[in-house]
Amino acid sequence: MKDTAARTGLQLRSLVKPNGDLELSLTQVPTPVPAANEVLIRVEAAPLNPSDLGLLFAGADMTKATQTGTPDQPRVANRVPEGMLKGMTARFDLSMPVGNEGAGIVIDAGTSDAAQALRGKTVAALGGAMYSQYRCVLVEQCLPLPPGATPAEGASSFVNPLTALCMIETLRAEGHTALVHTAAASNLGQMLNRICQQEKISLVNIVRNEDQVKLLRSIGAVHVCDSSSPTFIADLIEALTATGATLAFDAIGGGKLAGQILMCMEVALSKKAAHYSRYGSPVHKQVYVYGGLGAGPIELNRAVGMAWGVGGWLVTPFLQKIGPAATQKLKQRVAAELKTTFASRYAGEISLKEALDLATIAIYSKSATGHKYLINPNKGLG
Amino acid sequence: MKDTAARTGLQLRSLVKPNGDLELSLTQVPTPVPAANEVLIRVEAAPLNPSDLGLLFAGADMTKATQTGTPDQPRVANRVPEGMLKGMTARFDLSMPVGNEGAGIVIDAGTSDAAQALRGKTVAALGGAMYSQYRCVLVEQCLPLPPGATPAEGASSFVNPLTALCMIETLRAEGHTALVHTAAASNLGQMLNRICQQEKISLVNIVRNEDQVKLLRSIGAVHVCDSSSPTFIADLIEALTATGATLAFDAIGGGKLAGQILMCMEVALSKKAAHYSRYGSPVHKQVYVYGGLGAGPIELNRAVGMAWGVGGWLVTPFLQKIGPAATQKLKQRVAAELKTTFASRYAGEISLKEALDLATIAIYSKSATGHKYLINPNKGLG
Repeated sequence: MKDTAARTGLQLRSLVKPNGDLELSLTQVPTPVPAANEVLIRVEAAPLNPSDLGLLFAGADMTKATQTGTPDQPRVANRVPEGMLKGMTARFDLSMPVGNEGAGIVIDAGTSDAAQALRGKTVAALGGAMYSQYRCVLVEQCLPLPPGATPAEGASSFVNPLTALCMIETLRAEGHTALVHTAAASNLGQMLNRICQQEKISLVNIVRNEDQVKLLRSIGAVHVCDSSSPTFIADLIEALTATGATLAFDAIGGGKLAGQILMCMEVALSKKAAHYSRYGSPVHKQVYVYGGLGAGPIELNRAVGMAWGVGGWLVTPFLQKIGPAATQKLKQRVAAELKTTFASRYAGEISLKEALDLATIAIYSKSATGHKYLINPNKGLG
Repeated sequence: MKDTAARTGLQLRSLVKPNGDLELSLTQVPTPVPAANEVLIRVEAAPLNPSDLGLLFAGADMTKATQTGTPDQPRVANRVPEGMLKGMTARFDLSMPVGNEGAGIVIDAGTSDAAQALRGKTVAALGGAMYSQYRCVLVEQCLPLPPGATPAEGASSFVNPLTALCMIETLRAEGHTALVHTAAASNLGQMLNRICQQEKISLVNIVRNEDQVKLLRSIGAVHVCDSSSPTFIADLIEALTATGATLAFDAIGGGKLAGQILMCMEVALSKKAAHYSRYGSPVHKQVYVYGGLGAGPIELNRAVGMAWGVGGWLVTPFLQKIGPAATQKLKQRVAAELKTTFASRYAGEISLKEALDLATIAIYSKSATGHKYLINPNKGLG
């Protein structure tokens, strides 16, 4: 190993105990020596995505967290709600590393040609445990970034870009022609707008305030509905009538929005129906919930006919379904368009220690548009 | 036409006006002369299924209905809730006949051999407008009943039997091995129990009281969970663990039950999981809502992982998907097992006039297990 200082490195951990105690901590872990087809990455940027926050906080209300440990070894304690514990028995007492994806510099490589070729390169990786100073992954898990791209620019090369691309793949596979997206001003939502503009697919963007409407208009979005507006339902019906969208991807889940989307789709379809059916429109309307920004129960209005579905959707099983060749094609597109279609913005960069600071948690735990942070696990640890 | 009295016949109608007024009435309609491949049925038994009540009452609260008209020409007036009107524009001002299915005697037939062969036979038919004294349908819509079977015995030859059979077809097509059914003590639920016993498929029955538990136990049901019991959730988890059911058909829809079923499936799957996944079990859990016995919104708990779906399900589109040959095979099975597997029970038989009597409506509109009624459109009109 070239970087002799890297015998151990800090790693962020999340632990849930059977009694419901949640403990976040930093731990020193030995730095692995790469096997033949592996590389060792010095991680310099890893996004705090909503899916990471789910694993990190285990559903706990972080406004109720307490700071423990020392300034040098910060810890955070909290309680997991009783109702969420049932589904977590398999993680009880496991100190789990966190961080789906990230990017950094390859500082050591296994003996294979493919691994050696990545030495010194800036790469993105998807593999979990990316909130670590050093992370050893298979060559196949890496995406070499285009020349000149920084780790921060490549940190979100997988989750958001592949999610956006797979939404469009799903639209095609299931025979829809236009789609709806909620939390649409997010980094992911902006990527989806750029993809849909390129591919001439109509997209109905649902956002939560007027600033987000402006942001999306500024990047060329045509259909933007503000759920805080008194005319939201009418606006949505109009956009759905104009686009014919019968598929929605919902990042929120909790509350009435998924049901409102289905109901408005049904109204838009009924307006075009030639004759009445007691079962509503025969056209299938689908909402996929891919995130949990709204933690409460999903409330579905029944005025949606009978041809409807709501379900969970995740990019990883979808990629498994389309197979490695199709997946590789999508990844290559991401690398090629990293600074354009798939560009991300962040509110700031924090260190591992800062990630366990209550005031900082109060900001990044909100998952609010415009408040996405990067962790740089090597920040301040030069 | 042999039956010369049948120049006109009574027909039950449901009308929704754009202002939300609902009007139920009886009207005299001319009796059609059968075309070559049609037969004329004197309808003697047609069930009041929940799907018929949906069309008939248009979602109105029938406890608020008023009796109008005269004893000889009864009418019922009511109001459709504002929220349901939106989806009904296509039926505004249409006086709609009602009654999906029924059975009776073929009293006239077209010139084709197939039509002539049905002359005088007792047949069941699926075709709408069965709450009519006389109904002209295509030969293909008829199912000749086995010798000796009465119209009452054949009245429910389509909706419930085909629904039960198609639930099992869906289970197989989607790769599940066991299933859950709600409102499980219904005629349909009892058919499903008999089918599952024949085909050795594990069935988890969810019912709403102790009497229904006893009823299902008496016909050999193994897994019966009473949603009114304080141990319901634990009982359901135990039954799901024992059976491995990952598919449910829910007649109720409104309320928390669909979400509870998913949540209990997830708990049962998590208990068997080898390692923790932040996204929950990767095994897909599906609830199909095929009825609307609970009119309120569906409330879905989020503690179900990401591999889940809830959706509308109807037998007719499913039959279209499997095609006419497979459908015909299912119908033949129904005819062959009409008095055993597919036997139905009714609380009583009412005339068309009685169907528009408020006290009678108060009973049959409840869709309560053990309170299913037959309409005999020729009762008292012989």
